[in-house]
Amino acid sequence: MLKNRRMEEKPPSEELKARLKAARQKLWNQQMVLKEHGLPVIVLMEGWGTAGKGSCTGQVIQNIDPRFFRAATLEKMTEEEKRKPFLSRYFAQIPEAGKFVFLDSGWMDEVTGLRLHGKLNGKEYEMRLDSIRRFERQLTDNGYLVMKFFFHISKKEQKKRIENLLENIDTAWRVNANDKWQNKHYAECMEVFDYYLEMTNSPSSPWYIVNAESRKWAELQVLETLTEGIEIALQNKALAVPLLQNVFPLVKMPRLDEISLDRSVEEGEYKEEMERLQKRLRDLHNRLYRKRVPVVIAYEGWDAAGKGGNIKRITEALDPRGFEVHPIASPEPHEKARHYLWRFWTRLPKTGHIAIFDRTWYGRVMVERLEGFCSENDWKRAYNEINEFEKELADWGAVVIKFWVQIDKDTQLERFEMRQKTPAKQWKITDEDWRNREKWDAYEEAVNEMIQKTSTTYAPWYILESVDKKYARLKALRIVTERLEEALKA
Amino acid sequence: MLKNRRMEEKPPSEELKARLKAARQKLWNQQMVLKEHGLPVIVLMEGWGTAGKGSCTGQVIQNIDPRFFRAATLEKMTEEEKRKPFLSRYFAQIPEAGKFVFLDSGWMDEVTGLRLHGKLNGKEYEMRLDSIRRFERQLTDNGYLVMKFFFHISKKEQKKRIENLLENIDTAWRVNANDKWQNKHYAECMEVFDYYLEMTNSPSSPWYIVNAESRKWAELQVLETLTEGIEIALQNKALAVPLLQNVFPLVKMPRLDEISLDRSVEEGEYKEEMERLQKRLRDLHNRLYRKRVPVVIAYEGWDAAGKGGNIKRITEALDPRGFEVHPIASPEPHEKARHYLWRFWTRLPKTGHIAIFDRTWYGRVMVERLEGFCSENDWKRAYNEINEFEKELADWGAVVIKFWVQIDKDTQLERFEMRQKTPAKQWKITDEDWRNREKWDAYEEAVNEMIQKTSTTYAPWYILESVDKKYARLKALRIVTERLEEALKA
Repeated sequence: MLKNRRMEEKPPSEELKARLKAARQKLWNQQMVLKEHGLPVIVLMEGWGTAGKGSCTGQVIQNIDPRFFRAATLEKMTEEEKRKPFLSRYFAQIPEAGKFVFLDSGWMDEVTGLRLHGKLNGKEYEMRLDSIRRFERQLTDNGYLVMKFFFHISKKEQKKRIENLLENIDTAWRVNANDKWQNKHYAECMEVFDYYLEMTNSPSSPWYIVNAESRKWAELQVLETLTEGIEIALQNKALAVPLLQNVFPLVKMPRLDEISLDRSVEEGEYKEEMERLQKRLRDLHNRLYRKRVPVVIAYEGWDAAGKGGNIKRITEALDPRGFEVHPIASPEPHEKARHYLWRFWTRLPKTGHIAIFDRTWYGRVMVERLEGFCSENDWKRAYNEINEFEKELADWGAVVIKFWVQIDKDTQLERFEMRQKTPAKQWKITDEDWRNREKWDAYEEAVNEMIQKTSTTYAPWYILESVDKKYARLKALRIVTERLEEALKA
Repeated sequence: MLKNRRMEEKPPSEELKARLKAARQKLWNQQMVLKEHGLPVIVLMEGWGTAGKGSCTGQVIQNIDPRFFRAATLEKMTEEEKRKPFLSRYFAQIPEAGKFVFLDSGWMDEVTGLRLHGKLNGKEYEMRLDSIRRFERQLTDNGYLVMKFFFHISKKEQKKRIENLLENIDTAWRVNANDKWQNKHYAECMEVFDYYLEMTNSPSSPWYIVNAESRKWAELQVLETLTEGIEIALQNKALAVPLLQNVFPLVKMPRLDEISLDRSVEEGEYKEEMERLQKRLRDLHNRLYRKRVPVVIAYEGWDAAGKGGNIKRITEALDPRGFEVHPIASPEPHEKARHYLWRFWTRLPKTGHIAIFDRTWYGRVMVERLEGFCSENDWKRAYNEINEFEKELADWGAVVIKFWVQIDKDTQLERFEMRQKTPAKQWKITDEDWRNREKWDAYEEAVNEMIQKTSTTYAPWYILESVDKKYARLKALRIVTERLEEALKA
């Protein structure tokens, strides 16, 4: 896309001025329409060092009220960020509905930089490109407008700019080692950038190459492209998105009504096994901490199925410095205003840590589906989006374990009634629990579909038969310890 | 407090067991009462390395539902955290109303560590202690229960534990360089810890020294002290807090009705001055970025006074990589559930950056006061709390600039009507603006009190006469550039 490209030439100065004025006004007028329609906009500024991405962002944002945008510069990754999965620092930055985010370089800069410096081999690099394509597609599928600009300047121009900046002590700090490196290896960079742009140029989030030899002209190209992009996105808002076929390897799972629930365990055996398994888990936790393996454990299940007690038997065996339990309630306004996976991306553990989710991202295909909190297109698309999300975790090296805690309808009724009778447990039962119970059959259908469609080899579901809670606890501990041992062997 | 202290001795094992059981049950029962009463609890675990803070936390949290607590281990500061003001990483951790946070070492560990390693001189250390006392008092004054535990073991015991841990490869990683250093310099550490404990032992957040020679006994001491603390805090919930006298140097300020609003500027002079000042500011921004000076600019003022346009003239001159504008709306639920300064502490700039707040923490003494969103005791206390907050910023080295954008009532009416007539501006005017206007006199009184009580020498208010918006913009730019120049000279 870059090589042999004839760049659009700068118009005469009178025309430039008039068009700039018009484009600025257009952007100013669009911000409120955007707000009303709840359209979130991500503007990614990539390109050559010293091409003027930062100062162009500075110009563009002057046409937007500060309440409606945020501009972020992604600097060198912190040690903490390095211990998080790829893309999570970018996912964390996505804007709320109706707002803009401007990113001064992002995931392109990260992966092309690693590739150029020999830190990603061919296969790893292709995996990253896959991840990026999925990431951008998930954003646009979920109603985000993603505008990607590449600021292009020639080798000669870059050299001149670096020299000019270095001359003055007040500007010299703006030139970093990478700018100089790029200029020295311009052809090599061109090759890598070009390939990247080709491979990530999708119809729903295409690249725009900006001729950045002149500052004002670059600004105009960005403004005109951006405002046009917004116009189109506003027109397309109501469109449904094609459902993608599953491409991930699935595990065959039983339907809930095929699961026999009469399993149980003797008190004596329970105590002994529990002690043995917890000791083993304690040990494994130490080892995976040192080996820096991240672990994600997801709990879903019927109300009163015994999720809480089950989680407790896991955490009892863990060092509190190395795990976190995330109880997931209905989303807060700033969470609801973003991609539904945002609040999970931002709660992922760092390497060596365990994150346990008490309810999860599967709310999308259960409560959100059944209560109509999202559209049919939304939840139908979610199976694949979730498989992609968990693929990202698995590729990062995480052990992903998903539990469905299963009981039958009668057992639930017994437990609800018991809770209502016991003062110390009354807070655990609400009207909502009773309402959900009425929808048991619809939920069962949704759960069956969910388990069939999202039980991948890299992140399978495990059913915990929990009519006898003790049996379920031992089973969970056994699965966790086995999966961790496997990961430590690898 | 540590030296020559006779530690409470471990009870016989039968008694210990019975008391443990009772204390665990008590904590389990308390969590819902806590939730109902919205009491937030901070449990700080400090003490000698290898004294068992982490594993005790691990035990205690098993008696609380994961929805109601978070346990955080504060590890080595990241580079980013080092560029934030003292205490901000701890302020970020405070829990929501009705929930617990357990911190495995915190601000005591940080400052005593620096002191022991010669990185804080006597004066700096005393300043830190002042900051800590104010921080803890602000928390308890605002309804937080702060429980501080110091885990005490003898030199001999520590030595034994270090050796035991080092023997086994699975536990050796738990011993860090600091543990060994402490054991070698035990007496010196004792001296510093003791002084710290004395100096921060306040009636509202006293220290509890835990005899940590035995694990179970330590757990019991924490559980019994914690549950007793909660009991008392629940009884005291409705108490008002004494108002502290102002101890910070104040600047004499005029009342709003003494301010002459007939200042204006000619179009020609405006353009010329604007260009000159923005150029100067651009320059200064570069220099303060390199010198790592943080800047906080706060905007308050009447609706339609011209805050937005004023801010814009500042940001036009800034590199977008070095500033952020924070538009402050009414707090979200998770913000409302915390200390009212929390959402500002977590939005502070890092060194070298500029944060501009469009509306601020002064909402506490204006809208929250007038709309009854907080109690009279709350807002009366807030003047001092805010002075303390800004003192923290100033001590950190920040330039703190506060603007009150002033217009008269007639000018506001004109602008409101203009907004209503202009389609592109209608979104800027809401019913709430009209309702606020009706309370002009009450607001004026509150603003007068606020300006008198919070105009400190280190963070003074500046009045921007904004009937002529151009005059106000030039004045703001002049003040900002002057303050920055001053800071760069220092």
